[in-house]
This record gives sequence, C-alpha cells and structure tokens, in this order.
Amino acid sequence: MPQRVKLVIAYLGTGFRGWQRQPRQRTVQGELEAALARLLGCEAVPVVGAGRTDAGVHAAGQVAHADLPGTLPLGALLRGVNALLPDEIRVRSATVAAPGFHARSNAVAKTYIYRARWHTGSLPWSRLRAAEMPRVDEPAALTALTNGLEGRHDWASFTVTDPATATTVRTIHRVRVRPRRGGFDLEFLGEGFLRYQVRRMVGALLEVAGGRRDPDWLLDLVARPRPGARIATAPAKGLTLEHVFYRRTPAMRPAPD
Amino acid sequence: MPQRVKLVIAYLGTGFRGWQRQPRQRTVQGELEAALARLLGCEAVPVVGAGRTDAGVHAAGQVAHADLPGTLPLGALLRGVNALLPDEIRVRSATVAAPGFHARSNAVAKTYIYRARWHTGSLPWSRLRAAEMPRVDEPAALTALTNGLEGRHDWASFTVTDPATATTVRTIHRVRVRPRRGGFDLEFLGEGFLRYQVRRMVGALLEVAGGRRDPDWLLDLVARPRPGARIATAPAKGLTLEHVFYRRTPAMRPAPD
Repeated sequence: MPQRVKLVIAYLGTGFRGWQRQPRQRTVQGELEAALARLLGCEAVPVVGAGRTDAGVHAAGQVAHADLPGTLPLGALLRGVNALLPDEIRVRSATVAAPGFHARSNAVAKTYIYRARWHTGSLPWSRLRAAEMPRVDEPAALTALTNGLEGRHDWASFTVTDPATATTVRTIHRVRVRPRRGGFDLEFLGEGFLRYQVRRMVGALLEVAGGRRDPDWLLDLVARPRPGARIATAPAKGLTLEHVFYRRTPAMRPAPD
Repeated sequence: MPQRVKLVIAYLGTGFRGWQRQPRQRTVQGELEAALARLLGCEAVPVVGAGRTDAGVHAAGQVAHADLPGTLPLGALLRGVNALLPDEIRVRSATVAAPGFHARSNAVAKTYIYRARWHTGSLPWSRLRAAEMPRVDEPAALTALTNGLEGRHDWASFTVTDPATATTVRTIHRVRVRPRRGGFDLEFLGEGFLRYQVRRMVGALLEVAGGRRDPDWLLDLVARPRPGARIATAPAKGLTLEHVFYRRTPAMRPAPD
C-alpha cells in the first residue's frame, strides 16, 4: 500500500535550472525524483512541490508530497535519498501526510527572504545566498515603503502574463526589513506569490532606496496595476523560499481518546 | 615607491588545491597573485601568506602581505581586486603595514575552527564548511579530552615528516568544544600548527568520542610522540582558518605627540 509522504526540502539553487523538472536540465525536482526512483528501484516517482522556484533561487523549507511504498521506514528513506542526492539538495524531513494532502493546493502561506549584502568585504559563504549591491544608506527607511506593499492588491505590474494564473490578486500579510551585518534582509509573508513578484518588489524597493525613483512611483504600481511595467528583477541568488505553511489537517492532530 | 600592504583574505576552499601557488593548479595564492597582477598591469605580484592551508580547507581571516605601488588608493585596490577574483575568494581588508611586516614570521597565534555536523537534515549551505559525521551522543564529554591537548607538546604523532620544520614542538593555548545546532565546533587557539595537525587532532578526538579508542590512547600520543602513528585525518571541508594574530608593531600604534 502506498502512503502519502510530506517532504521538507532545502537546496542551494546556484547550480539548478529551478525547481521544475525539464528535459535535459538539472532541476531540483528532477534530481529528487531520480534519487527516489533509484532508491525504490522504480521507473519514476513523481513528487509535487508547493511551488516552483526559478533558476538560482534557494529553499530552506520547500515542501513536496509523493506517494511511496508504506513498507519503507521513513528514517531509512531520509538517509537513503540524502545519500543519493547531490550535496546542494537535502531532504530535511519526511513524515506521513493525510491521504488527501496536496503540497501545492493545501499551502495557505509562504515566507520568502531576500538577502542583500554590500559589495565589499562580505564572506564568500555569505555571498552564496545573497545578492551583492552598492550600499544603501538607510535600509531602515525602506520600512515606510514596505508597509505600502502589505494587504490585498493586484500584482499585475510585478509579474509576467501566465495563462495558468486565473488572477493576479494576492494578499501580502507582512513585509519586514531586517538590518544584517554587511547588508539587510527583506522578509515577505503572503498567501502566495506570482512569478517574479518577490524579485520585482525587491527591485522596485531598491530603485527607490537608491534614489532613482520616487516612493510614489512604487505605490502607484501597486495601486494601479500595469502589466509590462519596467521594473528591475533583483538577482535570483538573493532569494530563498524559507517556509510553506499549511492548515493542520485532522490526520496530523493527535488521535482523540 | 612601493608600500607593504597587509591583506585579510576569506575563501571557500572547496574548489582550490589549497593556498600555495602550484603550476597548473587552481590555488588561492595563485588566483590572488593573478588578480593583483592584472589590476596593476604587472608581470607578477608575489604575496606571502601567514601559512599554507591544504586543499579544501577554508579561511575567514587568512593574512598575507604584498609590496604594492603606493600610488594606488587602498579602497580602489580592494574593490578592483575583488572584482577580478573568483566568487569564492574575497579580500576583506587592505591596510598599510609597517615596512618590515611579514605575514608569516610575525604571526604569533592562529585560531582554527573545525565544524562537525550530523549527517541528516543539515542545510546545504551549512554543509559547505562543515564535515558530516554520525551523531556523537555527548559532544560536551569531549571537553575532558580537549583539556589534555592544551599546553606545550611535541606533536610528531599528528603530522608528517617535513624537512622544512625544525621542531614539532608547539604550544596550544586553548581548545574549546562548542555545541551547535545539528553538531558541534572545535576551536583551536595555538602559536602555530603543523601540517595535518588540527585535522588529526580532530580525527583522534572523534575516534575516542565514537568509542573506538580509549582516552588514554589519545593522551599517550601527545605524551609520547610517535611519528607515523595511525590517526584518521578528519575531512578538509570541516576546517576553517579563522584568525591570525600579530603583535602590535610600533608603526601600527598611533604616532606619539
């Protein structure tokens, strides 16, 4: 009997063409499915991710589900799949999910962090998951702007046309600016994000912070959606999918007495 | 007029055959000298490091000196050389040194940290500078052992024969075990370390911690040096040269009134 398993996956996106499996490309989903198939001796083991991440984007807590034989203990699965995966991908946990659990459809919120660090002097290992940029004098001043991004808005200015997306309206619950040694982090918590949305929000914030645009320009892009607006897309290497949130399902609660 | 410059250098050692320049090998010294030569338009710009690190070993605070034209502002040097270096090497600072300053001869102490992390679940970016190993039940119990390594000893059991090394006696000032999320760090502060010494001290500590050897075996290797003793050398990827210490030289003190 197969059982549905929830996997939490971390990856350094640098060497991958993003999450989604593509023919003849090195992708995270492709590597994960290949490692599971090899471990289980199957032709193919499809995994369904909570969302796609673009080429070069990292994850600390991507989530996926897969239907795996119930005979394999999850501890052995975890050790086995990690031994077969490349160093840059780690399955952090594997737990039994409720039978109908769906990593994408059931996700209720996601957190992304964009790490920005000044050019000079940063350590090589802090650069792997951070975008380097010229110093911004007062990152804290970004806070007034980030407040303007919170709430329910039509984000058409910040994405690309995608026939699979029914609506470009999404709620952002919270945007935080956190000063860090040698730079700052921008943390986005929302019900979901459109393609390029986070990187273009970051790009727009940095254009204002750098004095090349007025705050009103950014707020207007949010208030009056303009598909195809010219907004710089911040480099992928600064972005990490940190966490995917799910409602507790009954199966994940302790069994009643 | 050339001036002597002190450089503090960080590198992720993964892709290098160690610090020392070697023909047809990618080394940190080789890359740094090539970047300086290109920046300055010279044939060659020799740099002298505080010490060699082996293939795969990292540094947060390697130090080197070089004689550079006094006409180049150090801020421009820093930006220029970092723009030319590969991503895994960063010059963190460049300061004017006393004329006779010598990065190797004047070093009075060094700190190395060995990062050990358990196999499962660790994040890909915390694995780049850490060695993975099976869980040790009580890393804190290592402390009793590490105390036995402190002091002035003959470390012949822990190194290889090197005609350039006059003596294998060195003082270790302090060894600390620090529990970390998903593993632990071992921090070594000493006047200097022989080739493989830190990695073999770590290898021996882990053999005892893993129950394969008695504590007396380790203490005996320290008390009665045996060149060629069979000690596992811990993987290079866990080791980072953190800091090189110098005595203040008169030129580095504020000028007297």
